[in-house]
Order: sequence, then C-alpha cells, then structure tokens
Amino acid sequence: MSTVPYKRLNKDDAVVLLVDHQTGLISLVQDFSPNEFKNKVLALADVAKFFNLPTILTTSFESGPNGPMVPELKELFPDAPYIPRPGQINAWDNEDFVKAIKATGRKQLIIAGVVTDVCVAFPTLSALAEGFDVFVVTDASGTFNQTVQQASWARMTAAGAQLMNWFSVACELQGDWRNDMEGLANLLSQRIPNYRNLINSYTVLTAK
Amino acid sequence: MSTVPYKRLNKDDAVVLLVDHQTGLISLVQDFSPNEFKNKVLALADVAKFFNLPTILTTSFESGPNGPMVPELKELFPDAPYIPRPGQINAWDNEDFVKAIKATGRKQLIIAGVVTDVCVAFPTLSALAEGFDVFVVTDASGTFNQTVQQASWARMTAAGAQLMNWFSVACELQGDWRNDMEGLANLLSQRIPNYRNLINSYTVLTAK
Amino acid sequence: MSTVPYKRLNKDDAVVLLVDHQTGLISLVQDFSPNEFKNKVLALADVAKFFNLPTILTTSFESGPNGPMVPELKELFPDAPYIPRPGQINAWDNEDFVKAIKATGRKQLIIAGVVTDVCVAFPTLSALAEGFDVFVVTDASGTFNQTVQQASWARMTAAGAQLMNWFSVACELQGDWRNDMEGLANLLSQRIPNYRNLINSYTVLTAK
Amino acid sequence: MSTVPYKRLNKDDAVVLLVDHQTGLISLVQDFSPNEFKNKVLALADVAKFFNLPTILTTSFESGPNGPMVPELKELFPDAPYIPRPGQINAWDNEDFVKAIKATGRKQLIIAGVVTDVCVAFPTLSALAEGFDVFVVTDASGTFNQTVQQASWARMTAAGAQLMNWFSVACELQGDWRNDMEGLANLLSQRIPNYRNLINSYTVLTAK
Amino acid sequence: MSTVPYKRLNKDDAVVLLVDHQTGLISLVQDFSPNEFKNKVLALADVAKFFNLPTILTTSFESGPNGPMVPELKELFPDAPYIPRPGQINAWDNEDFVKAIKATGRKQLIIAGVVTDVCVAFPTLSALAEGFDVFVVTDASGTFNQTVQQASWARMTAAGAQLMNWFSVACELQGDWRNDMEGLANLLSQRIPNYRNLINSYTVLTAK
Amino acid sequence: MSTVPYKRLNKDDAVVLLVDHQTGLISLVQDFSPNEFKNKVLALADVAKFFNLPTILTTSFESGPNGPMVPELKELFPDAPYIPRPGQINAWDNEDFVKAIKATGRKQLIIAGVVTDVCVAFPTLSALAEGFDVFVVTDASGTFNQTVQQASWARMTAAGAQLMNWFSVACELQGDWRNDMEGLANLLSQRIPNYRNLINSYTVLTAK
Amino acid sequence: MSTVPYKRLNKDDAVVLLVDHQTGLISLVQDFSPNEFKNKVLALADVAKFFNLPTILTTSFESGPNGPMVPELKELFPDAPYIPRPGQINAWDNEDFVKAIKATGRKQLIIAGVVTDVCVAFPTLSALAEGFDVFVVTDASGTFNQTVQQASWARMTAAGAQLMNWFSVACELQGDWRNDMEGLANLLSQRIPNYRNLINSYTVLTAK
Amino acid sequence: MSTVPYKRLNKDDAVVLLVDHQTGLISLVQDFSPNEFKNKVLALADVAKFFNLPTILTTSFESGPNGPMVPELKELFPDAPYIPRPGQINAWDNEDFVKAIKATGRKQLIIAGVVTDVCVAFPTLSALAEGFDVFVVTDASGTFNQTVQQASWARMTAAGAQLMNWFSVACELQGDWRNDMEGLANLLSQRIPNYRNLINSYTVLTAK
Repeated sequence: MSTVPYKRLNKDDAVVLLVDHQTGLISLVQDFSPNEFKNKVLALADVAKFFNLPTILTTSFESGPNGPMVPELKELFPDAPYIPRPGQINAWDNEDFVKAIKATGRKQLIIAGVVTDVCVAFPTLSALAEGFDVFVVTDASGTFNQTVQQASWARMTAAGAQLMNWFSVACELQGDWRNDMEGLANLLSQRIPNYRNLINSYTVLTAK
Repeated sequence: MSTVPYKRLNKDDAVVLLVDHQTGLISLVQDFSPNEFKNKVLALADVAKFFNLPTILTTSFESGPNGPMVPELKELFPDAPYIPRPGQINAWDNEDFVKAIKATGRKQLIIAGVVTDVCVAFPTLSALAEGFDVFVVTDASGTFNQTVQQASWARMTAAGAQLMNWFSVACELQGDWRNDMEGLANLLSQRIPNYRNLINSYTVLTAK
Repeated sequence: MSTVPYKRLNKDDAVVLLVDHQTGLISLVQDFSPNEFKNKVLALADVAKFFNLPTILTTSFESGPNGPMVPELKELFPDAPYIPRPGQINAWDNEDFVKAIKATGRKQLIIAGVVTDVCVAFPTLSALAEGFDVFVVTDASGTFNQTVQQASWARMTAAGAQLMNWFSVACELQGDWRNDMEGLANLLSQRIPNYRNLINSYTVLTAK
Repeated sequence: MSTVPYKRLNKDDAVVLLVDHQTGLISLVQDFSPNEFKNKVLALADVAKFFNLPTILTTSFESGPNGPMVPELKELFPDAPYIPRPGQINAWDNEDFVKAIKATGRKQLIIAGVVTDVCVAFPTLSALAEGFDVFVVTDASGTFNQTVQQASWARMTAAGAQLMNWFSVACELQGDWRNDMEGLANLLSQRIPNYRNLINSYTVLTAK
Repeated sequence: MSTVPYKRLNKDDAVVLLVDHQTGLISLVQDFSPNEFKNKVLALADVAKFFNLPTILTTSFESGPNGPMVPELKELFPDAPYIPRPGQINAWDNEDFVKAIKATGRKQLIIAGVVTDVCVAFPTLSALAEGFDVFVVTDASGTFNQTVQQASWARMTAAGAQLMNWFSVACELQGDWRNDMEGLANLLSQRIPNYRNLINSYTVLTAK
Repeated sequence: MSTVPYKRLNKDDAVVLLVDHQTGLISLVQDFSPNEFKNKVLALADVAKFFNLPTILTTSFESGPNGPMVPELKELFPDAPYIPRPGQINAWDNEDFVKAIKATGRKQLIIAGVVTDVCVAFPTLSALAEGFDVFVVTDASGTFNQTVQQASWARMTAAGAQLMNWFSVACELQGDWRNDMEGLANLLSQRIPNYRNLINSYTVLTAK
Repeated sequence: MSTVPYKRLNKDDAVVLLVDHQTGLISLVQDFSPNEFKNKVLALADVAKFFNLPTILTTSFESGPNGPMVPELKELFPDAPYIPRPGQINAWDNEDFVKAIKATGRKQLIIAGVVTDVCVAFPTLSALAEGFDVFVVTDASGTFNQTVQQASWARMTAAGAQLMNWFSVACELQGDWRNDMEGLANLLSQRIPNYRNLINSYTVLTAK
Repeated sequence: MSTVPYKRLNKDDAVVLLVDHQTGLISLVQDFSPNEFKNKVLALADVAKFFNLPTILTTSFESGPNGPMVPELKELFPDAPYIPRPGQINAWDNEDFVKAIKATGRKQLIIAGVVTDVCVAFPTLSALAEGFDVFVVTDASGTFNQTVQQASWARMTAAGAQLMNWFSVACELQGDWRNDMEGLANLLSQRIPNYRNLINSYTVLTAK
C-alpha cells in the first residue's frame, strides 16, 4: 500500500453536493436515528453556508413518492443550483449536475445523500473516475441498515474516496480557530449539545 | 398482581418537574446520544408549554461544577418556580420544591431529570410515598449507562411509578386531535423528523 | 406477588384489534426493521383469519399525513368493522370502536398497533380498567426506539396486560396441532422462513 | 408488592422438564448463538443427572419436520419418562406428561425448552395455576429473537415463575460445596471454560 | 492506493450466481434475521428476473443434510443452468459451473450465497484471479456470525471484489428510472416496505 | 400492584456486604468490561468507607481455584468481619455471616458480589425472607452475560429487592451535599471521570 | 488496488501455529463469549488434526501467571513441536519457533492465538515480511474487546494477511467433499450444532 | 495490494504525541465509556513513561471551554514539551509542535487524542505525508460515536497509518519480557484488572 499525498480540504477548492435528501426517501434511512440524521444533515448544510462553499442540490423524482427536498435545505441555499433529475439514478449521469460542478472550477467534492449505497456511492465512484477528490460525509448520508452502510463504505474506500464526518469537514476547512473563532463556536454550539454545554458552563463562570 | 385503575394523565391535574438538567451534569449522560437527549428534553418542555402545565424547575448547586440549568429550559419558563437547591440531593427534601408542587393543587407529577437513578428516582419514590401519581418521562431523563437506567426503572416501577416517554405524555394529555389539531401537529413536527417529513410530503401533494 | 389464574387465549372468546397500521405512521417505527415489522403484522392478520377471529380495524386521521391503513390489512378483512377515528387518540375513547368490541361478546382482546406507547398502550390500559383481558402482540406493534418500547411494556405489564408475540398467540389459540395440522403448518411456513425450510427439507426426504 | 417466602430449590422436591429440544425446532432459536445454546442445554442435563433429579422428556411431532429430540439428551436419560406428544402444543395438555410429573410427588418444576414463548411458557403458566413452583431455566430455553424472549419472560414472571439459569440451578441444588466438591467442580469445569481454566492453572501450580 | 476505473454494472455484461441457498444450509445463517435474509435473497432474484440477467444456480449435495435449493429460487428460474455439484466446495472447481458462466460471454459476476466465507468467497476469489469483475451481494449472502462476515468481506475486498447490496445492484443496472419506471417501482415496492408505504400514501393522495 | 412505603437508605441503618469478589471468580464476569467492573466495585467500597458503614466480607473457598479476595478490598477494611466460607454457596447459610450482620443491629443490607445470580441472589432472597430490606448494587455485581444478569434481576425484584447502583447508593446515603461537600466531591471525582473533568474545568476557571 | 493471485490454502503447503492459548491469558479474552471461543479454538485444532497438518505450539511464560497451555490442545498434538518461549513476546523472535516452521518446508501459515493484537499480529507481520503467506483464523483468536480486534485486523490486512475463520480454513483445505465425506461431516458435526441437527434430522428420515 | 516491510515499533525511534486530552473536550467522547477511556489514556501515558519515550503534549485553547489538559497527564510529564496551540486545529500546522517532534530525531510517531477524526487524524495524515511512520493508539483516542470512529480509521488506514492499541504498543516496544519482567508486569497489572487477578492468584499460590 503506497502512501498517498494528504488530500486536505481547502475552502477555495471545495464544493458541497447534497443528493436526494427528500422527505419520502428519508423514511428509508435506518442506520441512524431520525434525530441524529436530521441534525447531521443540517450541520453539514451549516458548514457549507459558514464557509460560503458553492453548494449544489439535486433530487430524484421529487413530484412522486420520493417527495420534495427537505425544506430546510432548500431555504438555506436559495440561489444554489438546484437540479431535479428527470430519471437518472446516478446524479453524475445528469449533465446539468456535472456542469454545475465543473462551473465552480473546484476539484474537491464534499458529498452526502440518501441512500448512501446508491445516491452517494454512484456519483462518488463516477467523480473519482474522472479525477476529482471525493470526501464522503458519512454521518450526513443514510441508508437501510449497518450492513449496507459498511458495504458501501468499503466500495467507496477501495475506489479512493475519503470517509469523513461533518465535524471533521468543518475543522479541516477552518484550519485555524483564529480565522473566525466566534463563528466556528456558534456553528459547533448549534449542532453539538455537549459543546454547547461546555460553552454555557464557561460563559457563566467567566462572567462572574 | 391486581389490576389498578388506569391512571390517565389529565392536563388539569398534571404538573411538570424538570430536575437538574444542568450544563455540567448532562456530560454524565451516556444512555442516550447527546442529540437525542437534548431533543427529548426540549420536546417535553414543548409539551409542558403547549398544554400550559404548571412547570417547576430545580437545580443542584448550579454555581459549582454541575453548571447552570440548560438556558433553553430557563428561557421557556420565565415565570415558573425555579428552585436552586442549596444541598438537598432528593429535590423532595427541599421544602420550597414540595411547596411549589402542592401550591398547584395537582396530583399528577410528570418528572424528568439528570441523572435518572438519583435526581429522578429519589423524588419519584418520595412523591409516590405521599400518594402522588408519578409519570416518569424516561427519554427526557438520562444517566450513566443502560445498566443503571434499567435498574432505576425497576426500582421506580416496583414502587408504583408509570414509565412513559415525551410523546405518550403529549398524546395522553391531548386526548383528541380536534382539541387543537394544528397545534399538536406543529409540536410533533418540531421534534419528530419523520413526522415532519410526512407532513411536508402531504402538504406538497395536497397543495397541487 | 400473588399468582393469578392462567388467562389462556380461547378462540371462542378472543377478538383482534389492529390499531393505526397506517402507511405514514409506520415510518415512525424503528424498534424493528421494516421487513421484520411488516412480516409480523401480516402474520398476526393471518392468525386472525385462520381462526376466524372477529377483527376490528381502526385508523387515526387516515386522510392526513398519517396515511391510509396498509392495504394488505384492509383487503384481508373486507367485512370487518372499520373505524376511522375522527380525532380520538385512544381508540377506546371512540364509541364505535368499543361498541364493535362489545358486540362480539368476547372478553379477550388481542391488540397490536403503531405506535406501541400510544395507540396500543392507551386502549390496553382502558380495556384492562373495564375488566377485559388484554394480550399485547409485541412484535406486531412498533414504536420509535427500544427505550420507548421497554417503557411502554413496563406500563402495560404493571396494569395487568400480558405480553405475547404473534407466534405464541397462534399456538395458544390452536391448542392442538390435530385441530388442523396442515392449516397451521401452512400458516407458519408463510411467516417463519426457517420453519418453511424444515418443511421443505422434510418433504423432499420423505417423498423419496 | 408483597414479599413472598423464598422458594428455594430442593433436590428432593425438584423435577426437570425438557420440552421439545428437537433437531428441527432448534433451527428457530436465534436469541442465543448455536454453541452457547447447545452448551447450556447440555449443562442443564448434566445438572439433572448429577443430582439424580427425576427428569421428563417430551417432544412435539418428532416424526415430522420438527425432528427427533437431540440425541445427546435422549442418551443421557435412557430410563426417563419420554412422552412424544401426538398434537398438544402445551405439554400440560398431555395427560401422560402431567401424570409423569405428579408421579414423582415433587412440587418444584425446573423447566427448559424450545421455543420459550410457547413450549416453555404454556406449561409454566398451567403448572403455576395448579400450584406448582416453576423455575424457568432461561439460558437453556431459546426462541426467535430478543423481543420474543423478553415478552415471554414478562408474561411468566407476572404469573409467578422464577427466572433462573442453569448455573444458579446447580448452585441452589448443591447448597454446600462439601456435599460433593469434586463432583461439582467437574460439572462446572465441563461447561464453563473460564472455570476450567482456573482449575487448570490452580492444579499446575499446586502440583509443584 | 491507486484509483481504479469505476467498474459499473451493465445489464448486458452481468450474470447472476446463486450459490447454495439450500433449505438445510440456511439454518447456519445467523448474521441476518431469517425474514430479512429470505427477503433479500428473493429481492436479488427479482432483480435478476427484472433485468433478464442470465442466472446460474448451483447447490452442494442437495440430496444430503444440506437440503434442496429453496424452492422459490428454483421456480423463478426454470430454464436457468442448474448445477448440483457432486462434491466441489468451491463452485469454481466445478467445470460445468464455470462453463455455464463463460457461455454467457459476460464478465461481470453478481454473486450471493450461503455461507459467505466459503460458498461466496471461494468462487469470488477464483473468478477475480481469472480476470472477472465480481460484485458480492452482501445482504443476500449469509453466514455464522458478524465476525465471520466481516473477516470474509475483508478477504474479498483485498482481492478486488466490490461489496454491494441487492438495492444498489438494482439501481446500478437500471441506470435511469425512465427505462421502466413502473417496473422498478413494483420491484422496490415488493421488497422495501417503507417504499411501498410511500407509494401507497402517494397514490391515495394523488387519486383524489 | 400496591404502593410500598419508600424504603430509603439510612447511613445509621445500613450495612454493606461484599460477597466473593475473588481474583479467580472475577474471570467469570462478562456482563461488564473488566475496567468498568473493577471501578464500580471499588467505588462501592469507597462509599462504605466514606459513610463508615459496617462492612462484611466473605469468600468462597479462597484457597482453591476461586482465588483470594481482591486485595484492594481486604486492605480497605482491615478490621471488618471477614468470613471465608468453608463450603456454603449461599452466604446466608453460614452462621458467622448472618451473626455478623445481626450484630450490627441494622436492617438495610447493601449487597454486591460475584456472580450475581448466585452469590448475590441467594443471600438476597434469604435476607428478604427474614424481613431485611435489601438493596442490590447492580453495577458492583457481575455475572456470565446479559441474559443471566437480567434473569437474576427479575428473580430478586419479584422477591422485593431494590435494584440500585453505587452512585445512587452514595447519593441516598448522603442526603444533602452540605453534610460533607468536599468529601463527596472527592469520592465522585475518583470514580466518575466526567465528574472529575467538570471539577477540573471549574477549578481552573474560578481560580483565575 | 491491484488484484493479487488467489492464495489458496493447500493441505500440502500449510502449517498451523497455535500461539499462547494459555489458561491464564484466556481470561483476558472478551471479544467472544468463553464457550464460543473454546469451541472455535478446538475446532481449528480438529482441522489441523483432520488434515494432518504440521502443527506448532508455543507459549509465553507458562510457569507464571499466564498459566499452562490449555490441556486439550497439548493432548491433541503430543508429538508436535512445543516451544515455551523464555521471554520473546513476538514468537517470530524465538529461533526455535521459526526453525520449526521452516523445517516443515511449508509457506502457508495458518495462525491463531491469544491475544490477537500481540501474539497473533506480531508473528503475522514478521512472517509476511519474510514472504510467507499468512492466514489469520479470526474466530480462534481472541482479545480484550471489539475495538482492539478491529484495529488489529486492519493492521494485519494492510500488511497482506488474509482473514479467515476455522470453517473456511477447513473447507478450503478439503476442496472436495468426496476427498473424505464422512470425515468432514463428522468434523463439522462436532463443532457446528446446527449442522449436527441437520445431519440428525436427515439420518432419522432416511433411515425409515 | 503490495506487502510492505513490517514497520515495527522501536523504543529508540519512537515518540509519543498526546493531543488535546482536555477536561472539556473529553465530554464529547462517546465511543468508549468514560472509565474505559480514562484508563486507556493513562495506560498509554504509563507506557511512554516506562520506556522513557520522548513525549510531547499539546492542547487547543485550553483557557476556553475546551478546558485544561487532564492534570494526570501533565503531572506525569513535567519536563515534556508542552505546546498550547493558539488556534491551529491540526497540531501539525503548529511549528513548535513539529519542531519538538523533529528535535527528537525519531521517525515513529505514536499518537492519541481527542477527537479521533480531527485531533488525531489531521496530524496523522500530515505526518504520513512527510514520511513519518504513524501508529494510532485507537483505544486512547475518542470521538463522538462509532460511525465517526470507523470513518476516521478508514481514512487514516488508507493513508498508511497503522492502527494499534495501548497494549500492543507496550508489547511491541518491550520485545522481550526479560528486558524488565517485573516492570512490565507492574504496568499491565495497573491497567488490566484481569491480568492483575492472574498475578494475585499466582502470587498467593506460589507463596505457600
């Protein structure tokens, strides 16, 4: 196994892809509890917003049983490219989606979606094959059960994808707390209750 | 085992007790994930608010390492009796706390707290011994691990406490959806992501 | 703890209650995998059918986000009392539902539903208070998570409900295989893959 | 909850019931791993043998897909009453079975079987109703999954059964190691690998 | 670790291999619940059928304790090559099996079987060594426990196999919903209860 | 189920029984990880020491494979009654043990031991039968696995024992932090790492 | 990731290494239950015996607390090289051990031991570095917990070891059932209770 | 996958990095129980001390909510380089930290920290990219949950890190027990209760 150079997330080269977080499809997700999953997906959206990363949203058949994209996501990114796919299961097969990505000129793809083994894995494998670096946000991607989760992780890892989580994405993009200490603290406080508790304990004690 | 009459929650006879949900103490909770726990505690607070139940808050040594009460709870109930206990571990040993309860004239205690085996179990046992009906909100109460959780449930059940969860408390208090359909739907939608998804799917389809 | 007389299911005294197995509500169930849950619910329906037990179906707001009753259930019992409740959360608060039960003249209630802590627990507690014997089919009843499941089991057990599963219900009703050996074997074979495998292995070997 | 007198197992008043440990039925057991289950069943058989307890074996349709009783059990008790039931699911409904029990003149029933919720629970409930003391050997009884296991334990506990395990049965019957130190040590050593290791370590060191 | 080109399933180049799903052998499977496993195996068979993929069935000693192939599979593929192996454990060691594969002229092998570590892993490793692409359907393959499952996944992954699940196989073969929207929806609806529920909710609402 | 008066631990009426925490026997414990178990047992010993509770130690065949009592326990209680039992499995069958308990004139027994289903359950049941109140310290008592743990809890609960954990024992005995704030904080800090962290964070911030 | 040629176990090129299965050390194993672990270790020993594989045993400080090798293993291989290491933790650092391996002229090492992360991993890594093929028998190797198990598997896999289990080792060595059908059936029957049950059911039915 | 030479820990070439084990941050750790985690972190510190390995400590914003470094660690290494980072999240971005490492002239980095996916993973990836060998001590590193733990392990493994645990680190550094038998035994005895028990049993028996 040869050592590869550290591919480090860079906020000037990263784009966020949110794939098929739709109100119907999410009922298929069972590898996370509903509250944990919702919180992680919104945390990733917060991260995209906080770092002003170009963000691209796509859905599969949103007028059918799959349902519309979760409204919170749509509201957070009113000006983002939004691509309701007419039928392609692999978002990478949709020209508009790939065009939107290439239009950003960026090479680092941060991807999350529902379900992991299809809506995340397929575009991940396609993008890797075209030379992009792909960072899968494992805790903002959901699927049927642990077996499917683990199998799809193995397939993506073998193809060169890097498995991350929303918190490590946030921290790698931030690099240094001093870039915006209060901003990052606010972000973490919204999504990590134990961190919020630390801040609240601290604030009370230091305010004395 | 003799059948007891169904003790049913009644919004005119119930009072909510929130015991020691403090920023420091919550770091002891490991029988729920932090996000699940936070969500359930706030859901119970929402329920108290929605049904205008008298609510009593108490803390243990909030100026020390235990930390202040979680600010969200304090803000939700600005006018509620708030009893920082100077030392009593069992809140029932604090006269002000018991007085505040008795002042409501209500006999059904809905209780949650941190940690389950102490801050919930002790006042539960004391209140049962004095003839109150006690409904323990198991998912808004947290403790060290599953073993402790299960042992404390067994102790409280044997003494006559009824184990519930925030959702069943809400539904038993509501009784009939028609009492306030939109209100209840909003409440559930805030705290149950899969229910929110159902509503969102429904709304889109019926708006067509 | 005093010993109670063995309350044994009797196919001439039992009625089956299927409460709120609706296409929307089932997306809330996470204490069983979707396939396991579907299979157990249909197995219980098969049992009701096989023993010609009077069966009563009820739903909560089926025209809203909760969705219609699962079509398989409705099709299995075309002539059964079907009570869409206009708002009562506890089915026992609905007069038609209780009337339908009392019309059967039976005192043993076999109940299952979604979610366990509300749609099953509330009518169970009400029925016990009125002197019915209640047999909760735990594996055909689903809810949010294990914590809620266990808490609601404890509440119902303390009130005198008996916790069962679809298979033990079938076997207690059957009493003796000779009452209809092939019928019971068919029933089990449909819903228990390992039992089906035993029968298939056996059939091949004994056909030789 | 009133305290009951300690019903303590007595080797002069106990009888062992092994119900439906059949080669086919055991493929239904999934709440224990196959090796753990086999080991526990044989351990209980060893206990019955060691204390010369009257032991009664029964099977359900052993000529059909359920298969024959596990040969090891049959071989261990060549002279024990062996009752292949022609159809009764609840062994207590079989006159020969109950007669065999009553013929021993003993009032303490130690029972284990497959599956827990039916083959164990039904005769347990029947026997309790007739005034016998019943000790369920939980780890020598298997069923479909944890949900069914827990539900059936709750039903039996509520009816007055005592939940035990093969090891506690052995120890309560033995009472004092000095009654046969070597015999008990041998028994434990065969079925508890960590105990065997302790003995082996000890033997080597003290032989020096 | 070098990036490999995305090997994407192609319905014109894929063949399905169902290995040793026999009524006896399946009693060894404990890494999935029996219902989950049965459902996933039949789902994979549905996929093979839906895409008209050449499918090859093989068994090991079906006249002995291993038992016959599960009848459902045999009935679904009456004209498929069916190779009862006289003794070879690794199906790839059976000339007829390999001939049948090569006769299809296809290079993508979709494989599932019982048990994963032997009946799936051995032909997978052999086929990879001969230059085939192998896609292991992890959720339609079962074995003794999680430890064995994980170890065999690691061995196959290291050799170049891709781990998939029946759903991702279906989606990758389909490519675009528009290739047969109703057909795919039917397929998913049969095997994914939560998807069926979405469709049923949707159908009712849009029929109004 | 009738409500019993709250039996509250009282440091002037409680005695601690440590049963068979021996170096060999502990290798049988698998329902807790070794570090968790050691920590909880020592925590209970700390509690006994802190409240100056009379403490009684007993062992079973300590010169054989069971091994000596864990040295830390022996060292903590150099003057405590120490009863190596010559053979009685149920410590209550040993006259010296019961005499030592009765000599304290106390009626509340706090008990922990190895293994839960025998060394804890047997004396618990015997003591309850003689009218003592028994508080089982569930997390300082270990046994073979979760099944055995749960079965033995059920047996003891049904007989009237109260299930507790070392932390709730400490808190119920303390009653009010002001009885010895620093002492209790020290005790908790030694055994609850997250509490120690709270104190350390607090100390640093308030020292500024 | 490049495809490697399938390294297939060959009974003429394989040697079995049993490392530090000692009565004391085994008390450290917590990633398997004691019965499961014992059964798997003995099953691997049975396999070595059945295929007449050269087998090498080694221990670490067997005269100290680690204890002697499990007697069953020693008795099974009375003439095997037996190397009590005077201090080397990595068995490969012991010249006699490596000499014994090289004396067999074989290149395929089948290894198991206690604990996985040290006694198995270290010689595995050393042997791989010297060009041997190493097959780790994961279920006959035990360690402290799942975290350590998984980490050590990852380290060994990355270095080129193949993860197997005793059953797949047996099957790969056997190749074809016809090489000794009865022998293999006996072997499996001893160690796989569900397989034994299949054989017993089969035997009874075909004997008719 | 090519075989790499065995990179074996060498006490003359290894340096230990303890990253952000701070009193506040540790409240985020949920993939280990608090006691297990504390014990493993201190065990690694003991190892560093025992082998006199150069050890470097670093913290992130220790004057804010993250809290001070755990005092035990600071006290154990009073003379070690201690680098409170003013803002860099990846410790490798802090020049002093990297200088301190390079000043040791050593190439093997043994790293642990909180949280695994950030404070451990980032410097690990950076160090690997610069040609260091990195050994991640998985059980002395903690994070939010199992999903994040597994994803970060996969990312680090793919980049060439070796996953270890404190015990295997200790054993690989020691090489031969005879290098200091009593010292190593003491170390293990402090941190592995079951090992301490073995030693205590042994000592008593051999002292006779």
